[in-house]
Amino acid sequence: MRAHIWRSAHRASLVTRPNNNVRFLATDSRNRLSKFWAPTGGISAQDGEQDDSHNLLLKGGFLRQAHSGVFHLLPLGLRVQNKLECLIDKHMSSIGASKVSLSHISTEELWKQTGRYSSNSELLRINDRRESGFLLAPTHEEEITALVASMVHSYKDLPLRLYQTGRKYRAEKRPRQGLLRAKEFMMKDLYTFDSSHDAALKTYAEVRQAYTNLFDELKLPYLVADADSGNMGGKLSHEYHFVSPKGEDNVWSCSSCSYVANEELVEKPVFETNLDEIDVPGEPLPPLVFTGISMDRETAIHIVIARPPDLRDSTISWDRISSFVNLHAVKRMYPDLDTGIEAATLQKLLPSTNQHKILCSPSFPELEKTTSGVLDAIKEAYTRSEHRQKASYDTEMDWRKRVKEADVSITRSGDACPRCETGKLDVQKAIEVGHTFHLGTRYSDPLSALVAVPHSTQKEAIHMGCHGIGVSRLIGSIASLLYDSAGLNWPRAVAPFEAIVVTSPQVAEEDSVGIYDQLKGIDAVLDDREGKNLGWKLRDADLIGYPVIVVLGKAWKEGKAEVQCRRLGVKKVVERGDIRQEVERLLKQL
Amino acid sequence: MRAHIWRSAHRASLVTRPNNNVRFLATDSRNRLSKFWAPTGGISAQDGEQDDSHNLLLKGGFLRQAHSGVFHLLPLGLRVQNKLECLIDKHMSSIGASKVSLSHISTEELWKQTGRYSSNSELLRINDRRESGFLLAPTHEEEITALVASMVHSYKDLPLRLYQTGRKYRAEKRPRQGLLRAKEFMMKDLYTFDSSHDAALKTYAEVRQAYTNLFDELKLPYLVADADSGNMGGKLSHEYHFVSPKGEDNVWSCSSCSYVANEELVEKPVFETNLDEIDVPGEPLPPLVFTGISMDRETAIHIVIARPPDLRDSTISWDRISSFVNLHAVKRMYPDLDTGIEAATLQKLLPSTNQHKILCSPSFPELEKTTSGVLDAIKEAYTRSEHRQKASYDTEMDWRKRVKEADVSITRSGDACPRCETGKLDVQKAIEVGHTFHLGTRYSDPLSALVAVPHSTQKEAIHMGCHGIGVSRLIGSIASLLYDSAGLNWPRAVAPFEAIVVTSPQVAEEDSVGIYDQLKGIDAVLDDREGKNLGWKLRDADLIGYPVIVVLGKAWKEGKAEVQCRRLGVKKVVERGDIRQEVERLLKQL
Repeated sequence: MRAHIWRSAHRASLVTRPNNNVRFLATDSRNRLSKFWAPTGGISAQDGEQDDSHNLLLKGGFLRQAHSGVFHLLPLGLRVQNKLECLIDKHMSSIGASKVSLSHISTEELWKQTGRYSSNSELLRINDRRESGFLLAPTHEEEITALVASMVHSYKDLPLRLYQTGRKYRAEKRPRQGLLRAKEFMMKDLYTFDSSHDAALKTYAEVRQAYTNLFDELKLPYLVADADSGNMGGKLSHEYHFVSPKGEDNVWSCSSCSYVANEELVEKPVFETNLDEIDVPGEPLPPLVFTGISMDRETAIHIVIARPPDLRDSTISWDRISSFVNLHAVKRMYPDLDTGIEAATLQKLLPSTNQHKILCSPSFPELEKTTSGVLDAIKEAYTRSEHRQKASYDTEMDWRKRVKEADVSITRSGDACPRCETGKLDVQKAIEVGHTFHLGTRYSDPLSALVAVPHSTQKEAIHMGCHGIGVSRLIGSIASLLYDSAGLNWPRAVAPFEAIVVTSPQVAEEDSVGIYDQLKGIDAVLDDREGKNLGWKLRDADLIGYPVIVVLGKAWKEGKAEVQCRRLGVKKVVERGDIRQEVERLLKQL
Repeated sequence: MRAHIWRSAHRASLVTRPNNNVRFLATDSRNRLSKFWAPTGGISAQDGEQDDSHNLLLKGGFLRQAHSGVFHLLPLGLRVQNKLECLIDKHMSSIGASKVSLSHISTEELWKQTGRYSSNSELLRINDRRESGFLLAPTHEEEITALVASMVHSYKDLPLRLYQTGRKYRAEKRPRQGLLRAKEFMMKDLYTFDSSHDAALKTYAEVRQAYTNLFDELKLPYLVADADSGNMGGKLSHEYHFVSPKGEDNVWSCSSCSYVANEELVEKPVFETNLDEIDVPGEPLPPLVFTGISMDRETAIHIVIARPPDLRDSTISWDRISSFVNLHAVKRMYPDLDTGIEAATLQKLLPSTNQHKILCSPSFPELEKTTSGVLDAIKEAYTRSEHRQKASYDTEMDWRKRVKEADVSITRSGDACPRCETGKLDVQKAIEVGHTFHLGTRYSDPLSALVAVPHSTQKEAIHMGCHGIGVSRLIGSIASLLYDSAGLNWPRAVAPFEAIVVTSPQVAEEDSVGIYDQLKGIDAVLDDREGKNLGWKLRDADLIGYPVIVVLGKAWKEGKAEVQCRRLGVKKVVERGDIRQEVERLLKQL
C-alpha cells in the first residue's frame, strides 16, 4: 500500500510513497485541518479587504494571516511554494546558477556604502537593546556583492551565478491584497557576475531565456515589458507581468505590433502637440503648473504642461500630479525630484528653496511662441507659493535659462504606438511577478568587488545583474487568475498535488489504494476519509483546485471511474484500466 | 551523460540527473567558488575565536560569516542543511506531523499574553519608524498556539502535529563557536496538540521514539538527558546531546547504570554530609555565604554552604557562585532569585532590599547543631554588606524563621549515582542538539486554545508539547565531532554528496562519466575539473569530507579504481565492475 492517504482521526496510519521527488507530504494531520476550512465560517471575516481568490486560499487551508501583511503557510500552501521553488531550481540550474542561502540580517553600514540606506524608507530595522545597526534585508545586492568581493579576485573566476529562494522584508505601510503586497514574502533572487560588459549582456540574455522557459511552464499568459530599472542603478531591465485587475502596475501594449512597455518606459511619439487638436473656446487655456522639490530641498522644480481642455481649476494639488504628468519622464530629466513627498509637507518646504528649474512638456504649444504665457503661468504659480521673498528672477531671460523641455504628458489609451504606423496603445492592470536587471557596476564599484583582468595591471569592477521572481506573489496571482465559483485551479507545475482520487464511502479500501497506486509517478493524493460523503469530498477537491480529480463513485460497481478537469471542462467516464492514461492526457494540457 | 560534473570555467556544460531526490545541485559555478577555498588564505583570520572544525567549514566553502553570529550558507553548506531537513521530514512524517511555514515576525502583544515578553531579554525587536511592536520570533509557541486556537475547536480535531524547519532569531550577546551559538539559526520545531494529559504523554513517547530513530541515522554517539524545562513551563523534558569539548552544557552520567541527567536535573543522594568526611584541622571552618537578590529587588537571599576545606578566602564574589553552588537547585527553592545579575550591580542593589531569606545546604553540618555558627556567618556577611541600616534582626529566632534547607551543593565527578548502588557520576561537556518538552497547558491556557471535550459542556485547554532540533547547531557539531587533520567527515545521512569520483587529467571523459553513471542511485558528484592535478583534487575532496572517494588514477589503465574512506581507514583497489558494490558496502557503515 503506497499512498498518501487522507483519513479521519480514527484511522491514524499514513503511508507515504518513497522516491517521490516532492519532499513535503500532506499527512493525516493536514487532513484534520482540512475538515475545518468550511465549517469554521469565520475565515472571510479575517480580512475584509481581500478578494475572492485570497479568501479561497484562506478557506482552502493554504495559508492564514498572522498579522497585517504577514502570513503563515499551512501544508497545502507550503506544497505550492515548494513546487514553485523546485521549478525555479530547475531553470536556475539550466544556466549553471548555484543555490546559496544568505542571512536575512544585513547591516546599515553596508547599505550606507551603496547609498541605499537613507533613501530607503522601506527598511525594517532590528533593535536589540544596543542599537545594533542591523536590518532585515529587503533584497541582497549589498550582501552578495560583499561576499563575492571577499572570494573572487580574477576574471578567471567568472562568470559566477548565485541565487537563493528566501524571505524578504519590507516596511510596507499599507499591506494589501494578501500575498501580493506583504511585509514578509518569498523571493527568488539571482545575482550574476561577469568580467566584462559584453559578457554581462550575454548572461542577461541567458537569464531572460531561462525566465521565458520558466514562465512558459506555468502555461499562463504573461507579458514581458521593457522596464525602467528605478533605483537599482542599471539601464537594461525587463518586467514579467500577469494581466490582472488586481494588479497595481500599468502595462502598455500595442494593438498591432509586439510593443510592450511598463508605465515608466512607455515611449511617446515625440512632439505631438495635443493642444492643436483641441477646440479652444475663445482665448487659449493657461498652462497647468506643478511645483515640486528636490531630494536635498534646495531646488523648486516647476513642471509646466498643457491644461486639459475640460479642466477649469486654477491649481491642482501636488498629490494628484500623477493623473496629469508622467513622473517617470520627469525623473529622467530631474532624477533628484522627490516624487513621494506629500503636498502638505511640500508647501512647508518650498519657501526655503534657493534654486529654480523649469520643465516644459512639448505637448504644450511650442515653447518659443508661448514663452510669455508659460512664464506668466510659472510666475503666477511662483507668486502663489509662499517663497516670494526669494524672488530675484525679474527678466524673461533669467527664467528661460532654467527651462528644459521634455514630453512628460501621460500616455492614454488610444495614443499612437511609438514603434509601428497603425497601432494604438492600450493599458492593462498587471501584477509584476518577475524582473531582470542589468546592474553594471552599480554595486561592485562602491563595494570594491574587483577582479584582475587580462592585459591590465588595474583591477576592474565586476559587471553584475540581478534577477528576481516574486514567489509569494506568484502564488497569490496564479490563484487570482484561475479561480472560479467552485474554487481554486492550479497549473500542473505548482499544484499542491497533480491529481486526487476521491472515493465514495462504499468503495473498498483496496480499490481506492489500487487506483491510487496505478497513478504512481503522478504526484497524487487519495481522499478516502471516513465520515464524509462523496459530495463533500468533491466540493473540497474543487475548492482546493487539484488539476485532475478521479472519482470512484456509483459507476465503480461496473469498474468505471469519472475523470474530471474543471479547467478544461472535462468529465469523462473511463474504464479502470484507462484511468492513468486519461489523467496524463489532461495533465499535459495544464 | 547524466552527471553532476564539476568543470573548469572553460567548460560550461552542466549535466544534472533528473529524478534525483536532492533538489539542490552543486553546479559549475559552485565549482568555481571552490577553487578559492585554499588560495584565498585569508579565511582563518576572519574569526580568531573559531576552532578547527569551524575553520574547515569556512575553508571548505560551506559557509561564510556575514556579521557577528550571522552566516551565509554557500552551496555545499546548503546541501548539508537540506539533507538534514529531508532527514527530519522523513521522521516527522513517520509520526504524522504536517509541515507548515510560520512567519518569522511575531508581535509583542502575543508574547505579553503568555508572560514571556518582559522576561525575555533575547528578543530582537523590529522597528519601522512607527514602533510597530513586531519582533523576530526566537521560537513559535505563541504563534502556533494562536493559529491552532483559531482553527481547532473540538477534541475530534486532535491529535494534531505541526512542524516547520526555519530560521530563528536571538539577541545573542556574545555569538561564538560559529554555528553553535548564533543570532540567526535554523531550527526544526514540532508542536503537538492533544485533548487529554494521557494522550499528550503518548504523543510525547512517540516523538521521543522518532527522535531516537532520527539521531540513530546519523550513526554518531549521543546522550539523552533528563532535563529541566526551564521557562518553557512543563515538567517532562529530555535533551539530546553530542559529547564534545566545544559543548557549553554539562551532562552527568553514571559509570554503572544508564542514568543520564543535565546540570539542572542531576539528582543528589539526599543529606549526604560531606563535611563529616573532611579532615578538619583544629576548629570547624566557618561556612561560606553568598548573598543574592530577588528579581523584584525586594529580597536579599543568603545561601549558606559548607566551606571547601582548601578555601581560605573569607568571601567569594557572586560572579563565581556557580563554581560552589548548584544554582538550579537554589532556583527550585527561590524561583525569583536573579542568577544572571553581575556582582557590581548586586552590590549597588542590596542596600535597598527590605526582606531576607536564608537557604542552608544540608551538605553543611546538621543545621540544629551549628545554628549559631551559621547565623554568625550570615550576620557577618550581612554586616559586611552595605545595608546595615536595615538590620533589625536581633534574635536568633528572627533569623531561624527565615531559613530553608536544600542540598545546593554542586555535583562533582565521583559523586555517588542517585539511581544505583555502585555507580559514580561523571560529567562531560556536551552540545545540546535536540530537546523534547511536554508543555501541558502552559500556552493553551493564556491563549485560549480550547476544545470541546466529551461529557462536558465546558471547553478545555489543549495539552501541548514542543520539540526542537537545532539544525544549524547539528551542522556545526557534526563537523566538530568527525574532523581530522585532512579535513571534514560527514555521516552519509547529511553529507553534501555521498561519494565523489575524482579523476586524473589523463582519464578520458567518457570513462569518468561512465563510472559516475555506474553510481546512479547514489548521491555522487564527479570532479574532472581541468587544470587541476589528481593530488589537488584529492586534498580538496578530503577537506570537504565526502564519505567515499572513488579515484580514477594510475591503475585506471588496467581498468581499476581506488575506493577510499578516510573515516573507516579504507583504501582499496577494485575492478571497474565492482566499484558500485564497494561504495555501497562502505556507505552502509557511515
